Amino acid sequence: MNNEPIRFGILGCANIARKMSASILATPGASLRAIGSRSLEKAQSFAREAGLPVDVKVYGSYEGVLSDEKVDVVYIPLPTSLHLEWAVKAAEKKKHILIEKPPALAAEELNTIISACENMGVQFMDCTMWMHHPRTAKVKEILKSKELFGDLQEVHAIFCVPMQAKSPGFFVENIRVSPQLDALGALGDLGWYSIRGILWANDYDLPASVTALPGTKFTTDGVITSCGASFTWKDGRVATFSCSFHADKNVRLVLYGNNGTLEMPGIDAEEFKLYGVSIFQDMDIGWSPDVTEFHIKTDVPQENLMVQRFSSLVKGIRDGSGVIDTHWAVIARKTQQLLDAVKLSIEHGCSTMCIEA
Amino acid sequence: MNNEPIRFGILGCANIARKMSASILATPGASLRAIGSRSLEKAQSFAREAGLPVDVKVYGSYEGVLSDEKVDVVYIPLPTSLHLEWAVKAAEKKKHILIEKPPALAAEELNTIISACENMGVQFMDCTMWMHHPRTAKVKEILKSKELFGDLQEVHAIFCVPMQAKSPGFFVENIRVSPQLDALGALGDLGWYSIRGILWANDYDLPASVTALPGTKFTTDGVITSCGASFTWKDGRVATFSCSFHADKNVRLVLYGNNGTLEMPGIDAEEFKLYGVSIFQDMDIGWSPDVTEFHIKTDVPQENLMVQRFSSLVKGIRDGSGVIDTHWAVIARKTQQLLDAVKLSIEHGCSTMCIEA
Repeated sequence: MNNEPIRFGILGCANIARKMSASILATPGASLRAIGSRSLEKAQSFAREAGLPVDVKVYGSYEGVLSDEKVDVVYIPLPTSLHLEWAVKAAEKKKHILIEKPPALAAEELNTIISACENMGVQFMDCTMWMHHPRTAKVKEILKSKELFGDLQEVHAIFCVPMQAKSPGFFVENIRVSPQLDALGALGDLGWYSIRGILWANDYDLPASVTALPGTKFTTDGVITSCGASFTWKDGRVATFSCSFHADKNVRLVLYGNNGTLEMPGIDAEEFKLYGVSIFQDMDIGWSPDVTEFHIKTDVPQENLMVQRFSSLVKGIRDGSGVIDTHWAVIARKTQQLLDAVKLSIEHGCSTMCIEA
Repeated sequence: MNNEPIRFGILGCANIARKMSASILATPGASLRAIGSRSLEKAQSFAREAGLPVDVKVYGSYEGVLSDEKVDVVYIPLPTSLHLEWAVKAAEKKKHILIEKPPALAAEELNTIISACENMGVQFMDCTMWMHHPRTAKVKEILKSKELFGDLQEVHAIFCVPMQAKSPGFFVENIRVSPQLDALGALGDLGWYSIRGILWANDYDLPASVTALPGTKFTTDGVITSCGASFTWKDGRVATFSCSFHADKNVRLVLYGNNGTLEMPGIDAEEFKLYGVSIFQDMDIGWSPDVTEFHIKTDVPQENLMVQRFSSLVKGIRDGSGVIDTHWAVIARKTQQLLDAVKLSIEHGCSTMCIEA
């Protein structure tokens, strides 16, 4: 059996690439083979500043990374508008694809990327890091408990990050609100997490309808900086999300069941709360009417756990002990499909969009 | 000008009557004239235990209170199924009506009560106490600020009180889940507050549709102990509520605007939070990305403020300086109409009910 680590190549020098290169370097079973930027100078300066080991290959083009035969996986943190071109090229070079969210500007683009992966037999996964935190698995476990949580009724996601507070000038110059680079703005960035959270809680059961909330905000270029939507299912379930680059920091996923409510604060937080059915404890304590707080600790950051999971999938494919896990493509498609529907509803004055499964 | 206080009579010896009799006694401009129960003994024992002054008349029947010409206002904390009969009788005796929520079992019943009040020229108000807390007015002020809050997008109400934890045996013997007395169960009790909160936040603009959440719970007698619903407006606004007699205590009203989020914990709490648009403060502090916490204190409890407001309305009518304020009947009707729609949706397997304005 081949115990060689899975070798990653990175396309572009985005901020997030620094965090991810550290994760790749820290993950057993993974190694960093290469980084490529549009200019050699930029790639070299990134490698220096990120403290990459000297054996990491530095390329002055994305093609350099794709043509490197020692690269197994390409991690793509490029602006969203470049995903289609480079993800398809990477797949055609038989590289497995780990791609930043949103993976595409629209479901049709994503379908092209995923088809390329399927045709070439490579693994696809988008970088929704919170899914790999052990808190997520623990919450799901409780979510599945009829006694503790009951039947899912509502999901509410809020994801606000005041970008201007973090970097004044954000709305004029940042890539995340550039119509040429990240045309989906806050919807693609923060909304992606929220919609994924809603789908995750609903076992990826697509809603029947999507309706944008009123009051969407745009940059002068028409890029969304604040928006939200409601989702309904035929059985009465409902979900909403709201995301903003303007409002004070507020990140939360709240899940309502008919036996209890789960509240997950933060996106990489370790804690969550369960407001469950009060349980009779013992004669002294009696009924416990209080919220239960959980803390699910992880020794390594969630992005490392994502790299670990992806590497282990790719290792299985390489060794023949595993096959492509299509789950990640399926849930990416559904997330992107709902994102499309939200955008369409916004464009049509908050009209209700029916979703086809 | 007549400076005599407005004289209250109370029908029945419900728990809440103790709190309210204290409020009436403590409120300038109001006085407690009488209390009546089905048996004189019960009324006397209530008067003794509540420490009512000796000049409060004690009647062994509800009729006694209604026939007392020195009673201006009748406060009705009877079980909901008795409201129709006694509210109408009280109105016909030209008593102003302050009635516990839910004021009726269905909108049709409430219409009969309100018509009786209108015909007899008496003031109607239901006892939704949180509306009279100064926090409510302050939140509304912010809600109306385009800068601080923006356009209203979503409202989420949750109201869970684990009754079994408070009184074991609740589900078998309590009046609040008795099909003969309070047939609306948790929907009438906790749901009333939630639906009112949703309407209040939306300036009493009725939604276009109401859909019950799945997973409604009932007693063996078919009384609702846990339920919820989603509401939608044609412009994309959405609201949800969830209420339960089972789950851990969790009382909250959350309002989303496209500039900020307001969070009101508790029903008579003084605090609330605003997650607003981050505001540039000064060169030293820079942008403030943090939630703002408000504390709106009140010298007297909200129920006293309600008694004060009601007395002052009645005083205006008595003196000819004011007229009947129909606002309270209008919002009670709308609340009851939505409550009916939730109940109907539950009975029809969470079908969506269209609301006629």
